[in-house]
Amino acid sequence: MSLLVAIQGWSPDDWVRRFRQEPGSPPVLDAREPFDPAAVRYAACWKTPPGLLARLPNLQAIFNLGAGVDALLADPTLPAVPLVRVADPDLTARMTEYVVLHVLRHHRRVDLYAEAQARREWLKRDQPPARAARVGIMGMGVLGRDAAGVLARIGFRVAGWSRRGDPVPGVEIYAGAEGLKPFLARTDILVALLPLTPDTRGILNHELCAGLAQDGPLGGPALINAGRGGLQVAADILRALDEGHLAHATLDVFETEPLPATSPLWTHPKVTVTPHNAADSEPAELCRYVVEQIRRHEAGGALQNVVDRGSGY
Amino acid sequence: MSLLVAIQGWSPDDWVRRFRQEPGSPPVLDAREPFDPAAVRYAACWKTPPGLLARLPNLQAIFNLGAGVDALLADPTLPAVPLVRVADPDLTARMTEYVVLHVLRHHRRVDLYAEAQARREWLKRDQPPARAARVGIMGMGVLGRDAAGVLARIGFRVAGWSRRGDPVPGVEIYAGAEGLKPFLARTDILVALLPLTPDTRGILNHELCAGLAQDGPLGGPALINAGRGGLQVAADILRALDEGHLAHATLDVFETEPLPATSPLWTHPKVTVTPHNAADSEPAELCRYVVEQIRRHEAGGALQNVVDRGSGY
Repeated sequence: MSLLVAIQGWSPDDWVRRFRQEPGSPPVLDAREPFDPAAVRYAACWKTPPGLLARLPNLQAIFNLGAGVDALLADPTLPAVPLVRVADPDLTARMTEYVVLHVLRHHRRVDLYAEAQARREWLKRDQPPARAARVGIMGMGVLGRDAAGVLARIGFRVAGWSRRGDPVPGVEIYAGAEGLKPFLARTDILVALLPLTPDTRGILNHELCAGLAQDGPLGGPALINAGRGGLQVAADILRALDEGHLAHATLDVFETEPLPATSPLWTHPKVTVTPHNAADSEPAELCRYVVEQIRRHEAGGALQNVVDRGSGY
Repeated sequence: MSLLVAIQGWSPDDWVRRFRQEPGSPPVLDAREPFDPAAVRYAACWKTPPGLLARLPNLQAIFNLGAGVDALLADPTLPAVPLVRVADPDLTARMTEYVVLHVLRHHRRVDLYAEAQARREWLKRDQPPARAARVGIMGMGVLGRDAAGVLARIGFRVAGWSRRGDPVPGVEIYAGAEGLKPFLARTDILVALLPLTPDTRGILNHELCAGLAQDGPLGGPALINAGRGGLQVAADILRALDEGHLAHATLDVFETEPLPATSPLWTHPKVTVTPHNAADSEPAELCRYVVEQIRRHEAGGALQNVVDRGSGY
């Protein structure tokens, strides 16, 4: 029983080395070298070439080394074994850092005060407290719930939107297509943490931006996308910013990454671009997570964070 | 029994109007108009002229409309009645917003990524998690403890330094003069929330900056002063920044406010200036707080947040 490391573009050598060094790891095979397909019981994947996993007759589980499994699910030959996505506490904590930072940046008008500083202006303005600002989180999985908890502790009025509308203590939940409009209408700062599925592709479009609260206390609504690049329609976001429906967009993810130098997002004064680093997990943590799950599975335990292929996350 | 509103520089008209409108408020006198000194039982103060309070024979309590009472205590004629400082939940929550925002800004290297964006550079860097970053809070009163709680929830390693070293659950506490050096040596991000007293004046000096952790994971230590301007020696902070002992300083308070246009702090690339707005409380909240304390006092209850004149806070 071996673990195949099938990683592209994200330092495969380092991953092979890390898994080999991880205590308790099964024998590690490198997908870039010749290997016996029948020996592979588990696969650790990132941008794995389509078709590769279908050639492994004894595969029992696939581990995706990130929270988003859209790339793997796009492979029509993907074997019907459990697909596990990484949602370790390290990744969750880092995402919450990012979300809290960028919500507070907009709430506390950091750009406004930076411009005043550049003019040497002692700017006195009413600053609404967090309890006057309404944060809306799209996607109330592990990541959304953790960020919601910290934002609520800081005092923000937090609501969540999800497909099914499962209740979350202390958070007002809106559900499904019919819940989207009222959810947006009460939201000053929108945080997208959705998975990319056929239903969510392009959901961050012009209509969504224009549907956000236009009368809030922060000089216009803000959008923070730390989910998937495919959620957003960049041209629509730029249009909403230029029309004034949106005051700021903070984007960590893009349809094409790295973001091409020709993208107008780089230079728009109301756009903050971060290089898909909202929740860069520490590779050592991910290795530990995968090896621990293999250990549990071998001992007859259940795998955690198995993707529901029907919903796509 | 009347409440004298003795406020300078902070819209006294508005304060008089608010106190008059606050349900349950005693009769309100305006210190800028003629009034009967014997009628005054309570005084609501901000930048109150020295000597004024000494002329009130029936004064029972002084309410300072902010957390810092250094200006009042500098009045040698200040009557020996209880001096109450405002520490309402609104002020505390706002200060925590500010502290969490600016700690995360430094931790997540916002300036570094903004510079990369300006160059259209997709910057890939290792980002340490919060648990690798050590925040140190000087001043563990109501404000320091609240900020420490949220920072710890986000994952930071939080320590506190205070004069007496009272224990705080979940926070490593360093005490007094002998605790300062080891506290600084383990601190990557220093947050000053101290009151201004003869002991703390000028405490944020060159020696302190140079004593911060120089080997941390964030490209050098940062200083955030949201306490009092008199805590800092601006020239020392600038020197520490230029020498590289300090990577960034975020300053909300200054010896002279508004900060004079000639100050080099405005334009230093490693300094963030905010216009003493870290915790601008809502005046309505402060009025409610003062009137509620008067009500309790009249009913024989104890005043809250009474300043210990020996320690100066």
